[in-house]
Amino acid sequence: MASVSDIGASALINLLSAIAFLVAFAILRLQPFNDRVYFPKWYLKGIRGSPTHSGALVSKFVNLDAKTYLRFLNWMPAALRMPELELIDHAGLDSAVYIRIYLLGLKIFVPLTILSFAVLVPVNWTDGTLVKSKDLTFSDIDKLSISNVGAGSQRFWAHLVMAYVFTFWTCYVLYHEYKRVAFMRLQFLAAERRRPDQFSVLVRNVPPDSYESVGEHVEHFFCVNHPDHYLTHQVVYNANTLAKMVAQRKSLLNRLRYYQNKYERDSSKKPTTKTGFCGLWGATVDAIDYYTDEIDKLSKEEISERERVMSDPKAIMPAAFVSFKSRWAAAVCAQTQQSSNPTIWLTEWAPEPRDVFWSNLAIPFVELSIRRLIMAVATFFLTFFFMIPIAFVQSLANIEGIEKVLPFLKPLIEKKVVKSIIQGFLPGIALKIFLILLPTILMTMSKIEGHTSLSTLDRRSAAKYHLFVLVNVFLGSIITGTAFQQLDAFIHQSANDIPKTVGVSIPMKATFFITYIMVDGWAGVAGEILRLVPLVMFHLKNAFLVKTEQDREEAMDAGSVDFASNEPRIQLYFLLGLVYSVVTPILLPFIVVFFGFAYLVFRHQIINVYNQKYESGAAFYPDVQRRLITGLVISQLLLMGLMSTKGAKQSTPLLIALPVLTIWFHRFCKSRFEPAFVKFPLQDAMVKDTLERATEPNLNLRAYLQEAYIHPVFKDEISEKASAYDEEESNVLVPTKRTSQRSTPGQSKYDSEASDTGGA
Amino acid sequence: MASVSDIGASALINLLSAIAFLVAFAILRLQPFNDRVYFPKWYLKGIRGSPTHSGALVSKFVNLDAKTYLRFLNWMPAALRMPELELIDHAGLDSAVYIRIYLLGLKIFVPLTILSFAVLVPVNWTDGTLVKSKDLTFSDIDKLSISNVGAGSQRFWAHLVMAYVFTFWTCYVLYHEYKRVAFMRLQFLAAERRRPDQFSVLVRNVPPDSYESVGEHVEHFFCVNHPDHYLTHQVVYNANTLAKMVAQRKSLLNRLRYYQNKYERDSSKKPTTKTGFCGLWGATVDAIDYYTDEIDKLSKEEISERERVMSDPKAIMPAAFVSFKSRWAAAVCAQTQQSSNPTIWLTEWAPEPRDVFWSNLAIPFVELSIRRLIMAVATFFLTFFFMIPIAFVQSLANIEGIEKVLPFLKPLIEKKVVKSIIQGFLPGIALKIFLILLPTILMTMSKIEGHTSLSTLDRRSAAKYHLFVLVNVFLGSIITGTAFQQLDAFIHQSANDIPKTVGVSIPMKATFFITYIMVDGWAGVAGEILRLVPLVMFHLKNAFLVKTEQDREEAMDAGSVDFASNEPRIQLYFLLGLVYSVVTPILLPFIVVFFGFAYLVFRHQIINVYNQKYESGAAFYPDVQRRLITGLVISQLLLMGLMSTKGAKQSTPLLIALPVLTIWFHRFCKSRFEPAFVKFPLQDAMVKDTLERATEPNLNLRAYLQEAYIHPVFKDEISEKASAYDEEESNVLVPTKRTSQRSTPGQSKYDSEASDTGGA
Repeated sequence: MASVSDIGASALINLLSAIAFLVAFAILRLQPFNDRVYFPKWYLKGIRGSPTHSGALVSKFVNLDAKTYLRFLNWMPAALRMPELELIDHAGLDSAVYIRIYLLGLKIFVPLTILSFAVLVPVNWTDGTLVKSKDLTFSDIDKLSISNVGAGSQRFWAHLVMAYVFTFWTCYVLYHEYKRVAFMRLQFLAAERRRPDQFSVLVRNVPPDSYESVGEHVEHFFCVNHPDHYLTHQVVYNANTLAKMVAQRKSLLNRLRYYQNKYERDSSKKPTTKTGFCGLWGATVDAIDYYTDEIDKLSKEEISERERVMSDPKAIMPAAFVSFKSRWAAAVCAQTQQSSNPTIWLTEWAPEPRDVFWSNLAIPFVELSIRRLIMAVATFFLTFFFMIPIAFVQSLANIEGIEKVLPFLKPLIEKKVVKSIIQGFLPGIALKIFLILLPTILMTMSKIEGHTSLSTLDRRSAAKYHLFVLVNVFLGSIITGTAFQQLDAFIHQSANDIPKTVGVSIPMKATFFITYIMVDGWAGVAGEILRLVPLVMFHLKNAFLVKTEQDREEAMDAGSVDFASNEPRIQLYFLLGLVYSVVTPILLPFIVVFFGFAYLVFRHQIINVYNQKYESGAAFYPDVQRRLITGLVISQLLLMGLMSTKGAKQSTPLLIALPVLTIWFHRFCKSRFEPAFVKFPLQDAMVKDTLERATEPNLNLRAYLQEAYIHPVFKDEISEKASAYDEEESNVLVPTKRTSQRSTPGQSKYDSEASDTGGA
Repeated sequence: MASVSDIGASALINLLSAIAFLVAFAILRLQPFNDRVYFPKWYLKGIRGSPTHSGALVSKFVNLDAKTYLRFLNWMPAALRMPELELIDHAGLDSAVYIRIYLLGLKIFVPLTILSFAVLVPVNWTDGTLVKSKDLTFSDIDKLSISNVGAGSQRFWAHLVMAYVFTFWTCYVLYHEYKRVAFMRLQFLAAERRRPDQFSVLVRNVPPDSYESVGEHVEHFFCVNHPDHYLTHQVVYNANTLAKMVAQRKSLLNRLRYYQNKYERDSSKKPTTKTGFCGLWGATVDAIDYYTDEIDKLSKEEISERERVMSDPKAIMPAAFVSFKSRWAAAVCAQTQQSSNPTIWLTEWAPEPRDVFWSNLAIPFVELSIRRLIMAVATFFLTFFFMIPIAFVQSLANIEGIEKVLPFLKPLIEKKVVKSIIQGFLPGIALKIFLILLPTILMTMSKIEGHTSLSTLDRRSAAKYHLFVLVNVFLGSIITGTAFQQLDAFIHQSANDIPKTVGVSIPMKATFFITYIMVDGWAGVAGEILRLVPLVMFHLKNAFLVKTEQDREEAMDAGSVDFASNEPRIQLYFLLGLVYSVVTPILLPFIVVFFGFAYLVFRHQIINVYNQKYESGAAFYPDVQRRLITGLVISQLLLMGLMSTKGAKQSTPLLIALPVLTIWFHRFCKSRFEPAFVKFPLQDAMVKDTLERATEPNLNLRAYLQEAYIHPVFKDEISEKASAYDEEESNVLVPTKRTSQRSTPGQSKYDSEASDTGGA
């Protein structure tokens, strides 16, 4: 066990390394040639032009303005300066609510820290049980924790009362946060401009009809059952093959353009390429001719496939996007049951067009149910038994194994340095690879479950990842042994003993978790802002792979915040904070620093880097709340277990009320706020409809919705004029004012340091 | 432990006593003076006239036709003869589905009995482990059970396979039953005649508005948000005081009429009464004058109260019944969220007018949530700790206690015979009284929970009673000790050990449960048909209390099937059958006899005796299914525990799949069928609307709905001509034909033996 000074030293090292990261970031980000890595969002918005296109050659790549270096930390206030409404407008509600989770951490843990340092630390410190019993090894950290209070002491009343205070404070903050987010969502939805998904409903499991096509069947059904409201519908084509062809043609076209550019610049030499994989081997041919031929061939195939999809009734999936004349009618249809058989004509809110996961739209009801069963079982096995295949791989991946399979490597491996590296490195590598692949595995599992929108897929993956983190990181660190061994131990223990077993180990693991918070939390956040991997990748791609402007744009694409794996990790810090708030308050400041730092960094990243794939209107928030409540209940149960081993058995009846009240609070919040995330109230729909009818009486809604829900591959053909697809990108609160502001150069107030580099 | 011959003797005794009950019933029911006890339903329907009004004096009371006695068992085929559709028409869907539960028992357990006697009994019998180990006491019953198979024997494969077969068969039957009931419900709803609840929605938590009354607010809200569909609404008055007054006046009026009759018959003597409690003491006054005065006084009070309720805005509760122009619009409103705040403007299907529980309509959202928390905690304590107050009462209620409180009884109590009776009787009496009061207690708790319809109250009480039976009868019989001791033991046992502890005791308790089935099940059903308590009560009331014709009608009111306490009792037999099907198959025939006998008896009772209070359209069936699945899972877990103690540990992984599959099956069924019991599909609503519009284009719906949802006390005033209230009583499938049939005397085909007594 580490002493306070050990922890202090470790904290210092971690702080210094974090500061080093920040300085590196501050310097790197000012270099124009890194501009696309650190400010890709502004490029995507079309506001920021490439700095490498103008000015002197050197200043294209290196920032020579010394003054900007002096202000190397002023990205921080810049990140905080943008008000929330602007942020929602700039980055979407999903991102804005996502960073509020970090803020929520601060709101919960800052008062908790102050309270526990004011009350619990003195109570623990002055008891001195550990000093009296000299046979135990203990550290200063333990003297600050509940371990220092003697068995059966009256001082446990302080912990008991604080457990209540902490729970009530957490619930209070959670209630207000949920209320606020629900309000933000409703306001966001109310302020949204016209979007196709407001008028549309996704209908799945259209029953087969021998006399009618799917399209006719849908039209007839809704004409009959929503006679005054039905407007139009779009059937869903199974265009997966076609989508592949389109992607392939795009890549070929890109190469062709590259060679054409090359030929234009230096027309003396005709560029050549090889026909094999990636142009690396095979017969050498004239590149432009070759690619022109290939594209022609593929175009013909594509056209025939396109015709097949459009004409073949088998290519039509039993699903459709049905649009209505008003938002009210769409809200009605999405919330009601259509047929007496609840497995057909299933209606739900249409996801926004970007958010649709096309290939899952046609899964029948029974198959869906079976898929979910299989995936539930698979998640269980993945969580508890993932160590078994990894241990197996590890047992194979030793020196002898390699020597057997690849005997020619023997002389190299036998060298002492190499050997020791391999021996130190190999056992961990299988686990590392697994952990890197885990989010992908979980996402694949969620896709098999058959969800129809990307946002749902993200939410389901996050739920699985949270379970994994809870079992394998949290419990796995407290109790040694694999998850499977824990499971086995838990099954053989009484319901009473499980919290005890875990609870007893809690105080002992405090130093471990403090280190974990610093190494994983602080350093992780510092790494996030530096974006080392994307930085290196971008420059590598730019140097070797980028062939056209299109490639460059793809190379700099920062993607979006990875909600599916980031959110469960935040939950771990919440859990740690809640568990240790009563037991070892010294851990809390580390949590507070993590949340503060992460809030700052992610706010910056969301403003400058990430670009959302879709906008779900913070639909994930009920999950966040549920997991927070889970963490709270776990912390209460563990405290109960710990207290009962400390000779404070009489506290159990008092503590058991806490989880009961917490679960009740959760159910209350759920019924109070969750509908706002699932349903769309008719009143709000009516208000928007009425307003629109008054302002735009001559709107041709049918034309507006005609092409909204068309598979992306068909969309490529359609000229991208003022189509529906463009409009939903800009969810502007005050449309006219904002748009005009954006086009002027003076709007760079929140352009986060754009002036620093722009002036170079 | 009892031997087979012991059980046989016990079965014989029980069978004989059941037959004696049946014979007694057969004789009693043929006596005209019992007619109102055994055929009240036909009186209520107005088809059967009182046989005591016509014919010779003797034959008014005693049936002298010897031939009818010879056919004393032919109520049985008569009970079975009525086809199901007729039964639904006659007694409603609730009752028809209720007796299908018994039929479901037969469908599950007859094949299970055959299979286990064909496979498991030989397997168990021929092993002979018990014979070899001579130190154990065992009986023939045990030789037929799993106890006779030696530890680690390969014969357990038979039990394992049969556990799978039984589970699959049960699920198969349950699936088809659920499907059938859902279909019956949909058909029932589709065939229903026009009823007010089809067009109406109950709106609760109308937010207060300082400028408008509740009525205006409701009208404006729905005019705006359902503009083309809103028709009318009825506010809910807080008429609880008024209802009490009306009831009091009714009773006074009844007494007045009695004395008036008396005076008419014998005008020489003016009848007198006393002014005190129940006319038992106080000053003697002229009865007719006294009651006329009292009624006048009360009438005046009532009128002023009525005016107060109608005019005082505070008497209007923030709830209303909103009616729409079409079923489609009502279905839409009931299924959608109205306001962005999900705690106000809560809409749900209006219960049918008879089903409304008026006093719960005005509970605010937060209070409702708190009430449910308190009742959940109360249910837990009631289930596990009910023995504590009873033990306390028992400790007081001993001979010494009585002698202390009532010393003058001492000489009487000290007599030996009296003393022994008291000592044998007293300890049990507190428990008996508690058990008799239990359904009332549970119903009161459900009322506090704030449900708005009688059917929901019944369902919620049934759920609580089921928990009580499960814990205190089933587990309490298997493991000795109170529920609280069990709970304590379970908390201190591992999750693995609980099924083991219970499972091990299962085979040993087989004989106990066989006796229980005979004493509680068989005798209970025989008692049900004899209706001894209502019989005695009716004749007592008739002789001493009945004063007017109205009183007689009230005295013979049989009430309805007590779903809230009967259904959980049936569930116990299902549970016993499922648990013992693999372990001790000899128990199964007893279960089968119970279900067969009960089916017969309850079918008879539903045709002839019970009259439903409301019609919920079998809304309780999802609960039945859920509890059956719970029983199935319990049986699987207990088998797993039992097997693991029998040295068949390798079976655990195979058996653990069963509960997983069963729970998945439950979720599948739930999503497949439960919406039919909760929601009303738009398609069906539209079909009915269209049909009605075609057949009755000039229907004045507003007039039809005007008075439908008015508090019963206001309804008394309104003349009961062809009001909406009358129509919903006759849920006729083929309206014209049936109605004409009913009015002819020849329809007594299913009048269940009406000819037997009618001819007397």
